[in-house]
Amino acid sequence: MTASTQLCDIGFVGAGVMGKNLILNLADHGYRVAAFDLDHKKLESVISQDVLETNGQGGRVIACSSYTELLSRLTQPHLVILSVPAGKPVDDVCCKLIDAGIAADDIVVDTGNSLWTDTVRREKHYEGKFIFFSTAVSGGEVGARFGPSLMPSGDPYAWTRIEPVWRAIAAKVDPATGRAIERYEPGNPVKEGDACATYIGPSGSGHYVKMVHNGIEYADMQLICEVYQVMRDALGMSALQVAEVFKSWNQGILNSYLMEISAEVLATKDSDTGLPLVDVILDKAGQKGTGLWTAVSSLELGCASPTIAEAVYARSISTNKEQRVAASTILAGSSHDKPLETQREVLIKQLHDALYCAKICVYAQGFDLMKTAGAEHGWQLNFAEIAKIWRAGCIIRAVFLQSITDAYERNDDLANLLVDPFFAKQISLNQMNWRRAVAEATMVGVPVPALSSALSYYDSYRTAVLPANLLQGQRDYFGAHTFERTDKAKGKFFHVDWSLPGRPMVKVK
Amino acid sequence: MTASTQLCDIGFVGAGVMGKNLILNLADHGYRVAAFDLDHKKLESVISQDVLETNGQGGRVIACSSYTELLSRLTQPHLVILSVPAGKPVDDVCCKLIDAGIAADDIVVDTGNSLWTDTVRREKHYEGKFIFFSTAVSGGEVGARFGPSLMPSGDPYAWTRIEPVWRAIAAKVDPATGRAIERYEPGNPVKEGDACATYIGPSGSGHYVKMVHNGIEYADMQLICEVYQVMRDALGMSALQVAEVFKSWNQGILNSYLMEISAEVLATKDSDTGLPLVDVILDKAGQKGTGLWTAVSSLELGCASPTIAEAVYARSISTNKEQRVAASTILAGSSHDKPLETQREVLIKQLHDALYCAKICVYAQGFDLMKTAGAEHGWQLNFAEIAKIWRAGCIIRAVFLQSITDAYERNDDLANLLVDPFFAKQISLNQMNWRRAVAEATMVGVPVPALSSALSYYDSYRTAVLPANLLQGQRDYFGAHTFERTDKAKGKFFHVDWSLPGRPMVKVK
Repeated sequence: MTASTQLCDIGFVGAGVMGKNLILNLADHGYRVAAFDLDHKKLESVISQDVLETNGQGGRVIACSSYTELLSRLTQPHLVILSVPAGKPVDDVCCKLIDAGIAADDIVVDTGNSLWTDTVRREKHYEGKFIFFSTAVSGGEVGARFGPSLMPSGDPYAWTRIEPVWRAIAAKVDPATGRAIERYEPGNPVKEGDACATYIGPSGSGHYVKMVHNGIEYADMQLICEVYQVMRDALGMSALQVAEVFKSWNQGILNSYLMEISAEVLATKDSDTGLPLVDVILDKAGQKGTGLWTAVSSLELGCASPTIAEAVYARSISTNKEQRVAASTILAGSSHDKPLETQREVLIKQLHDALYCAKICVYAQGFDLMKTAGAEHGWQLNFAEIAKIWRAGCIIRAVFLQSITDAYERNDDLANLLVDPFFAKQISLNQMNWRRAVAEATMVGVPVPALSSALSYYDSYRTAVLPANLLQGQRDYFGAHTFERTDKAKGKFFHVDWSLPGRPMVKVK
Repeated sequence: MTASTQLCDIGFVGAGVMGKNLILNLADHGYRVAAFDLDHKKLESVISQDVLETNGQGGRVIACSSYTELLSRLTQPHLVILSVPAGKPVDDVCCKLIDAGIAADDIVVDTGNSLWTDTVRREKHYEGKFIFFSTAVSGGEVGARFGPSLMPSGDPYAWTRIEPVWRAIAAKVDPATGRAIERYEPGNPVKEGDACATYIGPSGSGHYVKMVHNGIEYADMQLICEVYQVMRDALGMSALQVAEVFKSWNQGILNSYLMEISAEVLATKDSDTGLPLVDVILDKAGQKGTGLWTAVSSLELGCASPTIAEAVYARSISTNKEQRVAASTILAGSSHDKPLETQREVLIKQLHDALYCAKICVYAQGFDLMKTAGAEHGWQLNFAEIAKIWRAGCIIRAVFLQSITDAYERNDDLANLLVDPFFAKQISLNQMNWRRAVAEATMVGVPVPALSSALSYYDSYRTAVLPANLLQGQRDYFGAHTFERTDKAKGKFFHVDWSLPGRPMVKVK
């Protein structure tokens, strides 16, 4: 059998940026890939890259001109991976594959940024036609090419087929250090280490977990931005000075990919003007939806993720650039003195500790949300494993994730990450600086919505008696909504007859 | 024609607490009502109340035993008002009315707590069968009986028919003072004053506006609760002492129904134990959904309502009572000294100003959300009118609303309530105390998620350059998400090639 007639292991639909890189990653690990894209130029680009990376040899990837050809080039049962935009395109491709004769025991894996409820729907919808499986992918272009973090979910049989593939191409972690093994060389992939790919659970759960990953990412980014803003606006530091601070922080407990790239961005000069790049970037943040989906889910499940929501809102407010510029000349700021030059090092240390504590709270919110969703949908999520596969490949990758794995390995039924002994101690040690940093920003007027919301979350969670008792009193007063008592009749509801003298209480149900 | 054969003006379905009170309110204003309820006991209760309130005369309300009888008792074209639980029951009743022969030019008015998108759907769905109109009602039981705030929307012709009815039974405001005219006497309704009923706009808009009203209500209640908590936990005040403070605040700029009833609740003793009532109420807050709907809508529209979301989350966290009690013994609190007895008056004044400023921000968020939704759905909302009908009858009623009306009468295209000269000045005058109160709570460890989120909202909105520039740099680094420049090429997007030396910038689109 010649190279061109030899059957391929994997069919691949969609050769955009992510698709192309996943295909080359698969090829690096010895998989032969038959690829299809409506845009033939994209296919040609993959093929030529394959030739380039194999010193003119090529042949690891073949281009197909139709879905029918794609299926005919594959070993059976077929394994087809999709990397197409979320939404309608996924269903379009599925229908084309049905027309092309895909069979009931063939597997189609959606790797797009799909909304998890769409995944649930699709899995049911295509039952009997083929097995619809999903895998959420994190890590952007570079991750896709050299090792992403993979969150597969769905049919367990399909998982047995895709597992070796995903483990091969996923990011790898050095089990001794908990750090990513980074080697970005075509043809020389990372093969040793723990693979950042684990079966998440039933239908949709992988995309849900990836959604929460992105919610955490939003909050993590926002926290870094707030700390940056305090250093710029309250301490009068330059972009380059903040870059230096972030670079040093990245050597310690705040080590993370996001910290690393923040330092990189801040150290970059605009190639056009020579100014700090960050100062020529317009401060209007974009968003693709996963952050708001996370916040919406947390609201609907009644599981508090305030810092994630604040991060989403911070992006929304940033888009009102014209209104903000106008308001900056109308609305008074604080009359509080800015910190003195001599206090700079003190506040920088406080900000460091604030960022660390707030970050713990963000992860606590994200993991609590996954726990709540898991209970709601009957998913048996393994949080130690989820933290493990986020140690490398994905955007929130950090050594820090190892501590989360450790926490869930100590107690897989942890009520909340905050009460794990390690994290409880970390916050205990650092909380006063966190409070001081938030108080200082509050006084000087630099907005810190995420840093302060995380602190309120911490203080609320550790408060035995919240003012919800007054709130229940208000609700009973205006709407007869009833309340429970602290001292007796647990689970029974009472109402005060507010219009009668002496305001007698009656048991309602 | 005898009383029993005389045709009625209005048909009414649903004689629960709200329905019964609305019926009696209608009767007080001279409308003859034919009423139906599946539960005949509820009808009997309305009839006997009618007899009681008319000194044995009765006859203002008649009970019907079927939908067919209900329609036969009405003048034509029929006007039928529904007060049934939101959701399926509304559609059930509509179908029964169709079976009973309701006609295309008859009007059915839903007064339940329906989700606004259900209202939009229903209006379309029943087109040709009858005219489906909606009116959101605020004010609880007492409001329904003696004067609610009414937010009608939908078909303009239906509005011409229902307008005099709604204006008659709505709460009334003294136009000279902007205050509610309160007279809670059966048979002697308030007839003078401005009626709290105005046509909101097309289909669904009334329920949307009511939803935002409730979102504001959630935040307003939470702010009061946080201020209460600081006085209890940081200042060591008793419930009765806080009640006294609230009572005095209710005489000034913080005057509102919610402030009034908070003082009432705090001054109430448990009839059972003699303890302060608030201390025997379990601190687990309930919620019915409108607050979370508001937060979800704001996330989906990309319009920041962080303080409303924080209020929803605060209720969620409160429900984890068992976890909080456990965490209170595990998680360290602040080591910062609590304020001294001598500082009490100072902090109370700071809390007063904080509550006032934060409240302005909550209304700014709510009105901005309505503005954004209005633009999205093509509703021409009149914000001066909306603020007017919230001055009385509803839960958030307050003299404060008059200032919002004034602001929108000065400028009906106001970008945000914060930049209205009156409100800008109010915050300018009070902001330092707001900052001090939040900083103090932050330092001592009393959670103030809503007070601090409102402050972050204010500070973000007045900041010309937010750190979203760094955030866009991060996004471009890991995901090639591109950014705009501050200095040129407005509307064009740029990307940095981060992997190349010198990191050159390219224009993308």
